[in-house]
Parts: sequence; C-alpha cells; structure tokens
Amino acid sequence: MIILIQCNDKIGLVAAIAGVITQNKLNIISMREHVDKQANRFFARIVSEQYSDVSLLLKDIQSVLPEGAVISINPGPEKKIIVLVTKEYHCLSDILVRNHFKTLGASVQCVIGNHDVLKDICERFGMPFYVVNHENKSNGIFESALLEVINKYPHDYLVLAKFMRILSPKFVELFPLRIVNIHHSFLPAFIGANPYKQAYIRGVKLIGATAHFVTNDLDEGPIIDQKIIPVNHTYTTEDMVNAGKEVEKSVLAKSLKMLFEDRVFVYNNKTVVFE
Amino acid sequence: MIILIQCNDKIGLVAAIAGVITQNKLNIISMREHVDKQANRFFARIVSEQYSDVSLLLKDIQSVLPEGAVISINPGPEKKIIVLVTKEYHCLSDILVRNHFKTLGASVQCVIGNHDVLKDICERFGMPFYVVNHENKSNGIFESALLEVINKYPHDYLVLAKFMRILSPKFVELFPLRIVNIHHSFLPAFIGANPYKQAYIRGVKLIGATAHFVTNDLDEGPIIDQKIIPVNHTYTTEDMVNAGKEVEKSVLAKSLKMLFEDRVFVYNNKTVVFE
Amino acid sequence: MIILIQCNDKIGLVAAIAGVITQNKLNIISMREHVDKQANRFFARIVSEQYSDVSLLLKDIQSVLPEGAVISINPGPEKKIIVLVTKEYHCLSDILVRNHFKTLGASVQCVIGNHDVLKDICERFGMPFYVVNHENKSNGIFESALLEVINKYPHDYLVLAKFMRILSPKFVELFPLRIVNIHHSFLPAFIGANPYKQAYIRGVKLIGATAHFVTNDLDEGPIIDQKIIPVNHTYTTEDMVNAGKEVEKSVLAKSLKMLFEDRVFVYNNKTVVFE
Amino acid sequence: MIILIQCNDKIGLVAAIAGVITQNKLNIISMREHVDKQANRFFARIVSEQYSDVSLLLKDIQSVLPEGAVISINPGPEKKIIVLVTKEYHCLSDILVRNHFKTLGASVQCVIGNHDVLKDICERFGMPFYVVNHENKSNGIFESALLEVINKYPHDYLVLAKFMRILSPKFVELFPLRIVNIHHSFLPAFIGANPYKQAYIRGVKLIGATAHFVTNDLDEGPIIDQKIIPVNHTYTTEDMVNAGKEVEKSVLAKSLKMLFEDRVFVYNNKTVVFE
Repeated sequence: MIILIQCNDKIGLVAAIAGVITQNKLNIISMREHVDKQANRFFARIVSEQYSDVSLLLKDIQSVLPEGAVISINPGPEKKIIVLVTKEYHCLSDILVRNHFKTLGASVQCVIGNHDVLKDICERFGMPFYVVNHENKSNGIFESALLEVINKYPHDYLVLAKFMRILSPKFVELFPLRIVNIHHSFLPAFIGANPYKQAYIRGVKLIGATAHFVTNDLDEGPIIDQKIIPVNHTYTTEDMVNAGKEVEKSVLAKSLKMLFEDRVFVYNNKTVVFE
Repeated sequence: MIILIQCNDKIGLVAAIAGVITQNKLNIISMREHVDKQANRFFARIVSEQYSDVSLLLKDIQSVLPEGAVISINPGPEKKIIVLVTKEYHCLSDILVRNHFKTLGASVQCVIGNHDVLKDICERFGMPFYVVNHENKSNGIFESALLEVINKYPHDYLVLAKFMRILSPKFVELFPLRIVNIHHSFLPAFIGANPYKQAYIRGVKLIGATAHFVTNDLDEGPIIDQKIIPVNHTYTTEDMVNAGKEVEKSVLAKSLKMLFEDRVFVYNNKTVVFE
Repeated sequence: MIILIQCNDKIGLVAAIAGVITQNKLNIISMREHVDKQANRFFARIVSEQYSDVSLLLKDIQSVLPEGAVISINPGPEKKIIVLVTKEYHCLSDILVRNHFKTLGASVQCVIGNHDVLKDICERFGMPFYVVNHENKSNGIFESALLEVINKYPHDYLVLAKFMRILSPKFVELFPLRIVNIHHSFLPAFIGANPYKQAYIRGVKLIGATAHFVTNDLDEGPIIDQKIIPVNHTYTTEDMVNAGKEVEKSVLAKSLKMLFEDRVFVYNNKTVVFE
Repeated sequence: MIILIQCNDKIGLVAAIAGVITQNKLNIISMREHVDKQANRFFARIVSEQYSDVSLLLKDIQSVLPEGAVISINPGPEKKIIVLVTKEYHCLSDILVRNHFKTLGASVQCVIGNHDVLKDICERFGMPFYVVNHENKSNGIFESALLEVINKYPHDYLVLAKFMRILSPKFVELFPLRIVNIHHSFLPAFIGANPYKQAYIRGVKLIGATAHFVTNDLDEGPIIDQKIIPVNHTYTTEDMVNAGKEVEKSVLAKSLKMLFEDRVFVYNNKTVVFE
C-alpha cells in the first residue's frame, strides 16, 4: 500500500502522519519525505506493509494535515497507459518488450501512430495499433480522431514515445500531468525542432534526453528525468541521432518506472522524484 | 542539530521517534530513515531546527527505542582530523585547500608523512607537518611514533590521503571506524599493490577509486563511496595512474563530505549513506 | 571498404600503408592506428571510399608490412551470428528488436536456449529458436547438441546473451575470439557465480557489466566494453539484479556494435577498440 | 615534437604527410587525424620521436598540403598563461596546485583579480597577484588596466577561472582563440547570468559546466569540454552552486590539459579535440 501526500509544511507533520499510521496498526516499510523550504511545501511517500480500511485511514490522515492537502492511498492496481508514436521504433519497442514480460509496471492498452510504420511491431506483440493520420486534416479533426481511440480504453497516462506532433492546448488540458513526453535533448538546451542538428552546429560535447510532463508551454513542462552521453567531433548529426536514441530509450524507461511506482510529485512546474 | 539513530527495527519506530521530537517542540527540518529488512536494522538521521536540553532529549528518544540502540545527538562542533600521507600531493592538496577556505566541514589538525615530500605544501598553508619515517624501523616503532604525533592533537578521524603503508591490526583497533582510506581501484577489483598495473594488464575499460573505512582485512573495510572513469587501449599504466588521481581526489572529497556531515552509518561491514 | 591490420611495429608503417592505398587511387575516409609501445604492436583500421582489386591490394599492403602481419580487407558482408540464451529476456529482446529493424549490424541466424522460456519472443520475430536442454546430459553430449544446431547456420560469432552454462575448453577452442559473453559484473570484481549477491554483501556503491570474448579462463577473456551504474544502501540483491539488467543490455549492445563494425582487435588478452 | 595541421581535405593527404615525415627519418609515435566531410576540412596531430631541422620539415610538409593550410611544428616549450579571477577559489586553487607541482602542462605567470579575495592563496604559492578593480571605472579604463598587467608577462593563453566580468569585443579581439572561460552551466542551456538559479527554477535533473573559448558572442564560443552531474529535488540553488563547483573545477582542468597538450583545433565555431 502506497500513501502519497502533498501539502503545505508545518511543524510536526512527520510525527502526526506516522502517528496516524501506527495507530492504525500499520507498519511503515519505507517513508520518504521532502520539504521545499522556499515554497513551504511538504511531500511524503509512505509504503506500508499491511492493509486496512482505506477510506477511514484517508480520513484519519486528512485530519492531521493542513487544509488543501492532497492525499492518495493505494493508487489502485497497475496503471493503464496508451502510447503515441510516429515512426521511430526504439522507445516503443522497449516499452512493448517490458510490457510483454510484465516488468513495465503498467499495462499498455493500445498504441496510436500518425503513421503505420510501427504497426507490424505492435502486432507481433498482440498489441492493438491504430493509425490516426494527421495529413490533410485540421489539427482539431486530427485530435478528435486521437481522442476517439483513446476513449476506447482506460488510461492513466498517455506516453509520447517519439510522437512528433505538437498537441494543442485544448488537447493537453484534457490530460493534466498525465501526458509524458521524451524530448531528444537536454532541456532547456535545444528546445523545439531538430535538436541534434542544433547540437551538431553548436559543437556540444554531450547530448542528452529529457522525459517531462507535457504542458502548454512547448518543451517547458515539469522534468522527470534527464540523462546525457558524451559525443565528440567525429559525430555527424546522424551519429548524434543514433547515439541519442539509446539515451532516449533509457531515460524514458527510467522515468516511466518512477511514475508507475508513484514516486513522482509535481509542483511549481518541477518534480520531486523519490528514487 | 543532528540526531543519528541505529537500532533493531520494529513497528512504529518512525512515529515514536518523530513523536518524541515533536513533543519536545522541535521542528524536523529533514528526516532520512532506512530499514535493512534482511538484517532487521533501522537507521535514521534527523536534522531539527531548534535546540533544547540534549541529555533529556537523548533520554526521551532512548525510551522509545529497542534495547541496544545507538543514538548520538548533535555530534558536537566541527570534526577534527589528522591526515596521513606519503608522497602524492593530489588528495592532500585538495583537503588543504578546502580546509583553508573552511569548506571541508572538518578542521585539519596536522599532517603526518612517512616522507618529507609534502612538507612544503603544508607549510604554505601554515599546517603543521610531521615526518615519521618508516625506514630502518620495526613496524611497532613506526606506529608508536605515529601515535605520539597523533596524540598531540584532538582527532575524530584519521584520513589516509594516499598513505602507502599498511597499518597493523593493533594500530587499527585503536581507531575503530575512524580511519578513512582512499584506495586506488574500484574495490573489490585489484585488491593490494599496484592496482593500476593490474588494471593495465587486465585491459579493463574503466578504472576507479574507493573510499572506505580501514579494518583489519586489507582493502576489505566498509565502502563509503566509489567512482569510475573510462579508459581505453591508448592508456599506459602511467596514464591510468594520472587519470586515477583525478578520481581518487574526487571520491575522497565526496566521502569526507558525507562523513563530516554525519551521513554515514556502518553495519555488517557495509555503509548506509544518506546523501 | 574496411582494411584491418595488426603487426609488429616499425618506423614508417603509417606512411607505407597510406602510400600503398593512395597508389591504388583509393581515398582514405578515415584511418585509425594505435601502437602499443610496450608490446611493440601496431594496429590500424582504414575505411576507404572506393573499391578495387582486393587481392592485389592485399598483396601490395602485405609487401610493406613486417612478417607475421595479419591483414583483412573488406571483411565481407554483414556478420552472421547465433545467440545463446537461458531464461532472461532483456539482452535477447534488445538484439531481436535491433535485428528486426536492421540496426544491429549483423544478422541473427537463430537462437538457442537451454530452456524454452524465450521461445515465444523469438517466434514473435519469426526467429528460429532451438531448445537444447542440458539436464540429465553429460556436458559433452549437451555441447554436441549445441554444435549440431550451430552448424546448421553460417556464423561469424556466437553471442552469449545471458547464457548461464559454462562452455568446455573443447567447445571454446572451436570458436577462438568468436564467442562474446555479457558478464553481470564489473570484471575482475565478482568473478564467478552470483555477482550481484557478492556485490550486495560487499556493499559496493557501483555495479557494472562487462562484455568480453570467451576464453578458457572463466571470466578472464579480453574485455570489449564495461559500464557501471551507481547503487546505494537501499538496493536489495534483487534491485541490483534489476538495475544490472539495464546496464548489461546497454553494454552488450555497444560491444556488439563495435565488433560488427570491425572496430575490435585482440592481443595479449586485451582489446584495442577504435570507437 | 608535435606537428599540427589544419587544411582543406583532399585525396592522399595522410599518405603525403606521413611520407614526408618518414623521408625525414622521423618515426611517428602517434598520429591522429580527422576529416569533417561536410566542411571538407582536414585535421592532424602527429607526435614524432626524433627531432630534425624544423623549418625544413615545415617547408616539406607545406609542399604537399593544399593552399591555405595551417601548420605548426613543435609549438615550443611549455605554454605560458595568465589567470583572471573574481572571488571564487575552487578553479584557481586547482590551477595553482597543479602549477606548483609542475603537472599543469603550462606555467602560470601571474593572477589578476578584480577583487583582492584571492590574493592570499596566490601569495602562499609565491604567485604574483594583481588587483585590477572594476568599480567606478569605465569598462575601457578597466580593460586598459588589465592589459597593462597582462603585457608585463609572456602569455599564450588567458584563463578565466570564474572571472565574473564580461570582456569587450575590443579586448577579446586582442586574444583570438586565446581566452578560455569556464561557464557554470551546460551550454547552451542557461546562457548569461545566474545559471544555477535558472536551473533550480527550471527543475533540471542534471547540472553541468562548459569550458569554451571566448568570442564576442557571449557564452557562444567554441566548446572545448563539458561535463555534468546529477542533481535532484533536494538541491537548493546554493547546493547546486556548490555541486557545480566540483564539476567546473574538473572540466576546466581537463580542458586546459587538452589545450596545453596541443590537442584542440578550432573551426566553424567548433572544436576538434584529439583526446
């Protein structure tokens, strides 16, 4: 059972929360807390061994927290996700393989592509794949078509696994902090299109990738994780793209793991990640 | 004020400890705890904002902990250390510079060398330097001479900053978990002499360094931190030695910082480090 | 066209080799050379743009090299490999995905498992899978059965992608420097069985993986690549195993890329890798 | 003896250059070359064992290169450098220590500070220190005062070791590709002032440092090296500053090593670094 708490900070919070849990005869397996002093914000993730009356526990915890506290207990069974892709296979394949072997920590419901290139790999894993083409369509119509597929399945998160279309504010607002994107640069460097080309021209010695929540500021949403790899003068733009794929795959996998294990909190356009 | 606790685990420990602290009107600034389930061992490091009657608080905390608990409160002012060296300057200089600018987190009392090579750099920082030569001496006499200097100064820790002599069990027992060594390999690989030569011959692609507590099993004491850097076929043994110096310096500095901030616990020949 | 040369070193080798290539009107796209001064050994990897009479060029190059030189020109089309596995899917899946999308740089001919666990994933990619069970069999009979399958297919390399059986000297000798293994530790630390358990007990702060050629000294063959990731006191043995899988997958992929691009030379139980 | 060549690419360059060197009875110890295909630019760094008539060799090499080639042979004895600082000690101390122990690969002539904070540490190493205060001065007068000190000493490079003033185009033009700066961010992210504060607000998970040549585009000069370290939600801006100092020190040291060993070429606002 996992208990997640985010609220304003005040003296004695840890003791109060731990007290409530102990009074309910629950043993705390692990407890992580963080206080952002500047923002006066408190975060806790508690794993407890035993189970009890959740709604009662929720009420008990609520009673010792400041007003406006956000609590969630036992965020339910495995998360359900929908993956959006364009043409690149590396992130999707990694997700499909982990999903297949039940090590993703979430269950992929279906995959939607704006091209059909990745249909074959999905079918090999028995994964429903939908082509929602964006060509010759207004963005509104394109996104309506996406939503039509999305709404066929339960979904806790949408994962943009190299989905190369920009989603409209209207669409994004339907999924607040529930869309995760892998961006192919070490944000905030090289925001926008063609980051590897920009990196090549600038002559950087490291390239990176950033997994972040999608908000309505392009490439400006809360960062979940980032990773880099060294490059050098021998790398062409294409070499950087290829090297970048490895790091994109790796950082997306790590971020999804953190997310699906309920280790990620968001506030002030930043994240607290209890690794 | 920092409170350190190590004891056997039991249900409700976090709540009990946090409760005692809150009852004493102390606000918890940060609290880190860890339970080793396998060893049934509990560790906590609590930073609290305000100060109070320490001996009373100690007694209060003790009362809620299992028998055999080790508690320390407010481990006193800045640690005092003595540094032992041989001929290599890189780790010592880094310590002297940080000590000089008051960013070491400890106060170096003196430096002891079994050669006089590093006397000059110490004098430049106004640091007392003692030569205790090991040549033509039994180990017992050599170590007695070391102790004579050491006992002139208060000392919480001895830091072996590339001290190339092996200390006897008798000597080590005088400083249980209070001698820190930087070993020039990624332990447990390349235990013993000439690790870089061993690494060269083996053709490894990474070399590393390990900071650890000294115990009577050579290079087998509890590891505080480790770091590596990539090497390749162009590295001679000497190149590895030089590259290794950078990582030795860096890993020792990091480990001392952890130690001096009271972030390191030891049990079962391992460490818990609350970074 | 790739030209690989390994020979004893002598003055003027680079000029002589480059001269021969230029005389044959070939432009050198890239040239990498290395001299191990201590071993007096010369290595070169030359990529040239244009093609010509290979056997003539080979003879021309041979004529300017010392006796005993090993040259290979244009090592032929894509490498062919056979993958051996036991039960773990992570390395195999990564290879299958890359193979499927033609980015492996080699062509997987078939997969052999001593269990049938990974049959399903192979079939999903249309990859022939053979179970060669080791139970209730002498090692000789087991290896004969392996060879029977192996010999059905052309094969430049055997890749042990978490194949948990130790191959006999007799078997290994059939494939000199043509068997690549991924070992789940930062060799030479934790040689042998259960490296993650050993790492857990020792309390290391980094774990790693090593891709190496298999020789008849267990875990002592020439190292192709190594990589590590940080771990800490919160990792159980199982957590280390899981974290290790990511690095195993990554280091094997990188090593195979180097190998399939003819960037790896072996001598004195070490490698030269022209990245 | 080190030979550096930068010129337009053409067929047979390696053979021609190597041929000239061999004809002059010089053995090539190591040769590194790189061709930027897109820019059609050739770079070579040749280390040869023996010495000969440099001006003749220069003429001989020139004769086989395309027009406009830039060659330098045996770039003379140890480089001479002048270090500019403001108040932070970490980069300067590292340079002073290496200079003192003759492992910097260059000889520091003097240190100039726009504050006097670092005078003491310089004096401890017998290093001339000049205060050139910028307060209540026009930039022109400040820079004239800097130049007055600089011109007292021979100088191959100026090193800005956390010098927190922006130099004017007029000043920078006096030292083309001869001013090295350490910038406290992973450029091009967080250009300009207060990068750590920017990083904190953005909630990045990595922070870095960049060593680069100073040009008249602020923070846009050719990058020599970059390095990062992971940070997390527990880091305040001040923690990031402190963690950043370690990486600044490390990346500046590495870049200076590359520079002083004549391993760095510049073209198109990028570098080729033969590590």
